[in-house]
Amino acid sequence: MENQQKMPLYQALVEHINKKPISFHVPGHKYGMIAKDYYKEILKLDATELSGLDDLHSPVGAILEAEQLLQDLYQTKNSFFLVNGSTVGNLAMIMAACHENDFVLVQRNCHKSILNGLRLAKVQPIFLEPEINDEWKVAAGVPMETIREAIDLYPSARALILTHPNYYGMAYDLESIINYAHIHNIPVLVDEAHGPHFIIGSPFPPSAVQVGADIVVQSAHKTLPAMTMGSFLHMNSHRVDVNKVKDYLQLFQSSSPSYPIMASLDAARNFLAAYKQDDASYLIKEINRFKERLSDIQGIKVLSYPNHLGDPLKVTIQSISHLSGFELQSKLEEQGIFTEMADSYNVLMILPLLKENQIFPLEETAERIQQVLKGITDNERKVEPPIFEQKISGLAIPYGKMEDLEEKRLPLLEAVGQVSAETIIPYPPGIPLLLKGERIGKEQISNLKKLVEHGARFQGGSLLENGQIKVYVTS
Amino acid sequence: MENQQKMPLYQALVEHINKKPISFHVPGHKYGMIAKDYYKEILKLDATELSGLDDLHSPVGAILEAEQLLQDLYQTKNSFFLVNGSTVGNLAMIMAACHENDFVLVQRNCHKSILNGLRLAKVQPIFLEPEINDEWKVAAGVPMETIREAIDLYPSARALILTHPNYYGMAYDLESIINYAHIHNIPVLVDEAHGPHFIIGSPFPPSAVQVGADIVVQSAHKTLPAMTMGSFLHMNSHRVDVNKVKDYLQLFQSSSPSYPIMASLDAARNFLAAYKQDDASYLIKEINRFKERLSDIQGIKVLSYPNHLGDPLKVTIQSISHLSGFELQSKLEEQGIFTEMADSYNVLMILPLLKENQIFPLEETAERIQQVLKGITDNERKVEPPIFEQKISGLAIPYGKMEDLEEKRLPLLEAVGQVSAETIIPYPPGIPLLLKGERIGKEQISNLKKLVEHGARFQGGSLLENGQIKVYVTS
Repeated sequence: MENQQKMPLYQALVEHINKKPISFHVPGHKYGMIAKDYYKEILKLDATELSGLDDLHSPVGAILEAEQLLQDLYQTKNSFFLVNGSTVGNLAMIMAACHENDFVLVQRNCHKSILNGLRLAKVQPIFLEPEINDEWKVAAGVPMETIREAIDLYPSARALILTHPNYYGMAYDLESIINYAHIHNIPVLVDEAHGPHFIIGSPFPPSAVQVGADIVVQSAHKTLPAMTMGSFLHMNSHRVDVNKVKDYLQLFQSSSPSYPIMASLDAARNFLAAYKQDDASYLIKEINRFKERLSDIQGIKVLSYPNHLGDPLKVTIQSISHLSGFELQSKLEEQGIFTEMADSYNVLMILPLLKENQIFPLEETAERIQQVLKGITDNERKVEPPIFEQKISGLAIPYGKMEDLEEKRLPLLEAVGQVSAETIIPYPPGIPLLLKGERIGKEQISNLKKLVEHGARFQGGSLLENGQIKVYVTS
Repeated sequence: MENQQKMPLYQALVEHINKKPISFHVPGHKYGMIAKDYYKEILKLDATELSGLDDLHSPVGAILEAEQLLQDLYQTKNSFFLVNGSTVGNLAMIMAACHENDFVLVQRNCHKSILNGLRLAKVQPIFLEPEINDEWKVAAGVPMETIREAIDLYPSARALILTHPNYYGMAYDLESIINYAHIHNIPVLVDEAHGPHFIIGSPFPPSAVQVGADIVVQSAHKTLPAMTMGSFLHMNSHRVDVNKVKDYLQLFQSSSPSYPIMASLDAARNFLAAYKQDDASYLIKEINRFKERLSDIQGIKVLSYPNHLGDPLKVTIQSISHLSGFELQSKLEEQGIFTEMADSYNVLMILPLLKENQIFPLEETAERIQQVLKGITDNERKVEPPIFEQKISGLAIPYGKMEDLEEKRLPLLEAVGQVSAETIIPYPPGIPLLLKGERIGKEQISNLKKLVEHGARFQGGSLLENGQIKVYVTS
């Protein structure tokens, strides 16, 4: 597709600055006239909705062209640039698809923006328990069996919301799930934040946009060369009204969207379109060599995806010494190696989408990791995977009622059986352990204590360090 | 305040990149390893929530320090960095302050993000008509008399939402209004998007934060040297729960906020703190000379603020020839002069916050404007100011019910008396002419036709070019 070589929005901004315009408009830096180091160049592109620069919320020119090229590349009906992350895509798709009080089936280990969307839409969420991978000790996808059971229990569900891949890059057979949901005319909304590059094809898993998902949200910034907060929302069908989606995107995003972010999305789409099979082959060769090198290092093991269903761009190593994943991550940082995420056992690394012959210090990284682990005796850690109690569960109190209830603090052990007044999220990876409005079970309290002991970081759970949790006062 | 010289967040990012970190984390450009022109430098600061870089949604380190410096400068109880524009500040303050069905008093000529917040919160908005300035032909603030009347009618109002200044920089006696509202214990929420620099003091009007407003949202990017989408939210009191505000800021903003934007807010705060009286004096001298020069040009007049209550950083010229404001703006653009906004009569220019002796091509601009207007005969335009029908008005249908109604199209002239199913916003300045759920009056139809004839641009109103509008089908 020759047009994919164009970057209409990026180009429009460059043409604009080349006119040497005098700025009597926002923003206040005036194309970088007032700017600190690192900013001088980018601020030349930090314009506003001037003639020829179009308008994200009502695109008719350069932005429309750029979005159409995005549609062409992903082969969708509608594709949109987002400037407030996949967060805003998730909020918009949920608000557009659902009405107050609708039943909505949702994968429990979803991003907090999905939970926030459910809350905002005041739906009745039915949480579906994911499988736990015993080797990785992480939650993966929802098994087909659970999906079937849930749809049979809730045939009038307004939507099924899934995450694909999970934070660790694990994929699954999304197509079968989507087909089953569609038989029941249930739209499938997919948070594919970690998969904007899947469209490259082999060796990457199929993207949700390619297997029939109705709406797919992707964080372009996570794996493509786009600026942070730059994301995509794709629509593949008419099951959800595109005008409602546009309406909510307008509502939830700044009326002054960032041109540098939008132009970086245009450039990222162009980068993706130009990414060839030769590039992918080179990338995989480099990654495999890196993984082999890591496999030789004592104290860690390199995890493999079950059934080879996962994102090769991600490499997860698991500590098999006394070091926790958090401690391993810290040691790597001391060596100048900054990884994406750690949990009690693992460290997740995300590699760059290397072009053929592009150099990245993988050998050097492996050496430093080896250095860090020198002298760490090979010691099998005592491992206890987190266990979720219920396969299919809802909230104990609807969102609407929660607003009116009082809250109180309880010591963790006394909280079992109470209804949580807070959502507690270890972040990364941004997946809630306990949800506001949910009845608190024994295993959840146990998992919380474990994570606190391991030094995990939380959003919510501010009282955890005092061994307490907030619950609702219910009569 | 010596600490104001620091830029803790900007500094943390610079220190981080100086470590020459190897990125195995998002974003995918890896500190600009994959980058187009203009982006190479800024991407070095486009990091993620790594050790030492803190977390906007749970700040404990560099971001907390930077926000505390912001609080110190503005002398507020709490101040927050926003990365999704004043839009997100407005949504959060409304959602935090209001419950479903509350009466909320709101200035009609408010930004669409305020309207969206009201809709999302499902409140019962009571719109207060602003004064029209006959010379400028624009809507200004709400007169004290209308405020009193509204509060007397709705003493249980949950909040009073005002905009200060308006898009054109017009200010008003906000303090008296706030005092009156506070007597009735009504929190005052102020959209001060156009006023982040007012804190400089004379010659700028007082900022809402200085006269007792409970929550104030400011678009740092509009007048300070911050990146687009960078804004502030300030809280001055306990009338609204700060924890609710934080909760909604977390909900509405990306879980991966942009570090370049946040660091630019830190730098903008630092710039503001260092802006001295000598700088302001120089700026005003330059602006006044510019305005005098413009006053000599035939075909336009330079507008003055009533009672000198307005932002000197803004210069509005009014066409007094046959040229509309839109046409004048276009002609200036052909000359490389890009202005902020035009309407049927005026062109608005926003100047930079010049430091002492800093050069900006004001004389050159004046010359080009003179050039553009050469030969345009001095012709008094027929002017008709827009007239609003009702001083205090509500919606005909509550937000909750609107979702369930059908819509139909009607020719404009047949729509009088119907309930509008669309919000029609000439943008800029982003102030709705007709609101979804509002009964359509004769004057609104008349104003719409006038704007269409003048070639104004709209969000919403997609059928206007066919002379139609969407209305609700009510029994």
